[in-house]
Amino acid sequence: MKHFTCVQDVEDVEALVQKALTLKASPWKYEQLGRHKTLVLLFFNPSLRTRLSSQKAGQQLGLSVITMDASSGWKLEFEDHITMNTDKAEHIKEAAAVISGYADLIGIRSFPALSDKAEDYQDRVINSFRKYASVPVISLESAIRHPLQSLADLMTITEHQKTARPKVVLSWAPHPKLLPQAVANSFAEWLLRSNAELVITHPKGYELDPAFTQGTTIEYDQKEAFSNADFIYVKNWSSVHPYGQQLPVQEDWRIDGPKMNISSKAQFMHCLPIRRNVVATDKVLDSPRALHLKQAKNRTFAAQAVFAALLE
Amino acid sequence: MKHFTCVQDVEDVEALVQKALTLKASPWKYEQLGRHKTLVLLFFNPSLRTRLSSQKAGQQLGLSVITMDASSGWKLEFEDHITMNTDKAEHIKEAAAVISGYADLIGIRSFPALSDKAEDYQDRVINSFRKYASVPVISLESAIRHPLQSLADLMTITEHQKTARPKVVLSWAPHPKLLPQAVANSFAEWLLRSNAELVITHPKGYELDPAFTQGTTIEYDQKEAFSNADFIYVKNWSSVHPYGQQLPVQEDWRIDGPKMNISSKAQFMHCLPIRRNVVATDKVLDSPRALHLKQAKNRTFAAQAVFAALLE
Amino acid sequence: MKHFTCVQDVEDVEALVQKALTLKASPWKYEQLGRHKTLVLLFFNPSLRTRLSSQKAGQQLGLSVITMDASSGWKLEFEDHITMNTDKAEHIKEAAAVISGYADLIGIRSFPALSDKAEDYQDRVINSFRKYASVPVISLESAIRHPLQSLADLMTITEHQKTARPKVVLSWAPHPKLLPQAVANSFAEWLLRSNAELVITHPKGYELDPAFTQGTTIEYDQKEAFSNADFIYVKNWSSVHPYGQQLPVQEDWRIDGPKMNISSKAQFMHCLPIRRNVVATDKVLDSPRALHLKQAKNRTFAAQAVFAALLE
Repeated sequence: MKHFTCVQDVEDVEALVQKALTLKASPWKYEQLGRHKTLVLLFFNPSLRTRLSSQKAGQQLGLSVITMDASSGWKLEFEDHITMNTDKAEHIKEAAAVISGYADLIGIRSFPALSDKAEDYQDRVINSFRKYASVPVISLESAIRHPLQSLADLMTITEHQKTARPKVVLSWAPHPKLLPQAVANSFAEWLLRSNAELVITHPKGYELDPAFTQGTTIEYDQKEAFSNADFIYVKNWSSVHPYGQQLPVQEDWRIDGPKMNISSKAQFMHCLPIRRNVVATDKVLDSPRALHLKQAKNRTFAAQAVFAALLE
Repeated sequence: MKHFTCVQDVEDVEALVQKALTLKASPWKYEQLGRHKTLVLLFFNPSLRTRLSSQKAGQQLGLSVITMDASSGWKLEFEDHITMNTDKAEHIKEAAAVISGYADLIGIRSFPALSDKAEDYQDRVINSFRKYASVPVISLESAIRHPLQSLADLMTITEHQKTARPKVVLSWAPHPKLLPQAVANSFAEWLLRSNAELVITHPKGYELDPAFTQGTTIEYDQKEAFSNADFIYVKNWSSVHPYGQQLPVQEDWRIDGPKMNISSKAQFMHCLPIRRNVVATDKVLDSPRALHLKQAKNRTFAAQAVFAALLE
Repeated sequence: MKHFTCVQDVEDVEALVQKALTLKASPWKYEQLGRHKTLVLLFFNPSLRTRLSSQKAGQQLGLSVITMDASSGWKLEFEDHITMNTDKAEHIKEAAAVISGYADLIGIRSFPALSDKAEDYQDRVINSFRKYASVPVISLESAIRHPLQSLADLMTITEHQKTARPKVVLSWAPHPKLLPQAVANSFAEWLLRSNAELVITHPKGYELDPAFTQGTTIEYDQKEAFSNADFIYVKNWSSVHPYGQQLPVQEDWRIDGPKMNISSKAQFMHCLPIRRNVVATDKVLDSPRALHLKQAKNRTFAAQAVFAALLE
């Protein structure tokens, strides 16, 4: 593995999940692996879980970890051959090369603007670092993907699945704010590399980009989709066409007790943060069938597995 | 000790002071204690002394320390059973549980809004973390208490006292800004657990909440209060009734040389930051009888004693 | 060496350059030197390269590193004997003494306001910390100097020089923003302590303060200056008289291929960040004769040499 910004970077997804589970069992087993090496985590957007879990993952591998907030004051130019006389202080060519001079691994977080699909789906920040850095680049969530989340999700499914081929439903849910498609996109492309059966359910109009869903069954009836589900993975996203909007939705897509009871074996998943009683009810979140806190905890070991694979 | 958010958490105050003094003598003696454990410091409000001293304390115990500024962009919901469709992105239940998944100890700083006493005196941020975290929670100053400061203050008094039962005067002083009562509240409740004699002096109307002062003598004449004092602990606070205000004060409550000379043995204390020539004169602060820098230095060992006690 | 805020602090510049080159060859050789010691890095202004390289340098010496952003919310008072009833929350006397209680080394970054030369050229922030701290103070760039940059620059020249006395040209270049003179000032005073021949070229009116240039040859014709150059060090600065302004410049001072070819042996240097095609063309920056990324990388070892010298 040279970089970790999408599932295509991973040769053997199942082996990476197993590596993460091994690290969960013995978090400090490889604390010599990162000795005398530096992990730089660069946040162009805010982060809680990713920031804490990535720092912890780095420390458990013995890495020196340097975290930097680049959300204000460091505007990068991504266009080639431009005369830089505006507000962009540094070109990505220099930025990526300079940080590569200080880091053995670089983690980057960057969100989409949600105003222009073509622009966002180029995933320019992460791809430019990938292009110009001379060390491995890890996505800490980009404009269109969140692969460390998906790896943690797959770990959690692996830990809690009761059949060899569980039915996993990715369900859209309401949210008061406009959110990216990154988590849903990654979840789809990672699940399609697993043994699970993936079904996607969302209101008409909320179709994800087919580059990520690759022909996955879409069931527009949420209750129908939940039938026989082993895992219900809930997430809001804004529409792809038209891009970055909230569309009128008639039905109630919130997850509540009766919906969870359509399949009595179904376990609830969410990447967090979650809006209680908007996305899912208190009853769902406070039930033993909710795995959202276990997913969050697994973020540490997902990151650790990735850093370890890139260091090896 | 399960948590450290108020003096009531401490079974033996004197023993904790002695532990801090022992660590001051050998700061790295217990550097294996925190090995493979993580301290997360979460700042909902700015911090200088607390931030530096807590990080240093953690490092001296061998802890991995992760510091996070949560002052902007991470708005927590504290109400139960609410529909989270406003600006609050995450519920304290998830926030505290998730961080507990990454941390062995969680330090939290949070200030009061000073507009509603009932609201502030619930001390909701720190108490909610205490309720929902599954690991020990340490107050790095809350809406109504600053116990790490009080512990450092008591260490400093112990180091500099010349009699078994020193007279300690907590004196209000002027300040251009509205300040919380947290430092004064904690100082009172900690001193009442010590061998010292506590006297409080302030202008009429600046009475602290009796839950903290528990019937302590109030002497409204500052000069009278200073008579025979061993320590003069100076601090501004805004009024409790009416809440969070600056009341008209006729007399000059600033600490100057002549006031310090009312008791020639008196030593000056302040928790910092201090407004020179508003709270106390240059002459007082630059005199060898001023202990404020020693208090600041003791913050490291106070924090270290608390972290060590919670890890043991 | 007691502090490191200007070249005058360094007894033997050549020896310090050699020490940095030795550390570059074996970065972890002295990782016991900083054991049980703490480096506090305090940023009153933003930083990328300095922040990353100083943290890395500290970690490679085994120091505990605490980085603190003081750019907002911590306004210091520098005037003596003032009544502090404005927006300044803490006096430098307390601030420097308190941080000295937590740190074995203190790094400080602070920029000029560029509105009053007399004010900026006092270099008050760094000099006040120097005065009131009880531990060594390191400039991470001050209002008028950037000595860690100059040390890295001199390392880079040493590594790439082909003659015992290379001709080094410091050339002004255009920039859309008003920039300090700090990098140019330091570069001049450090080069004057080296074996190199220094020539300065800039448009008329952009003369640097003679306290830094000490009679160095100024050649107003840029192309003439570049004749036979071994190194061309490019940097924009705002004018000194009148202070902090952009003056009208007729000629094109940007560095391009033909200018670099005036001396076929000339190597290009810049401290970064650089505005492509404003300061220098893509062709210059993407050529093998450009050393700017090597300079950035050397920042780590320059900082490490300074920290090591101050610890010894």
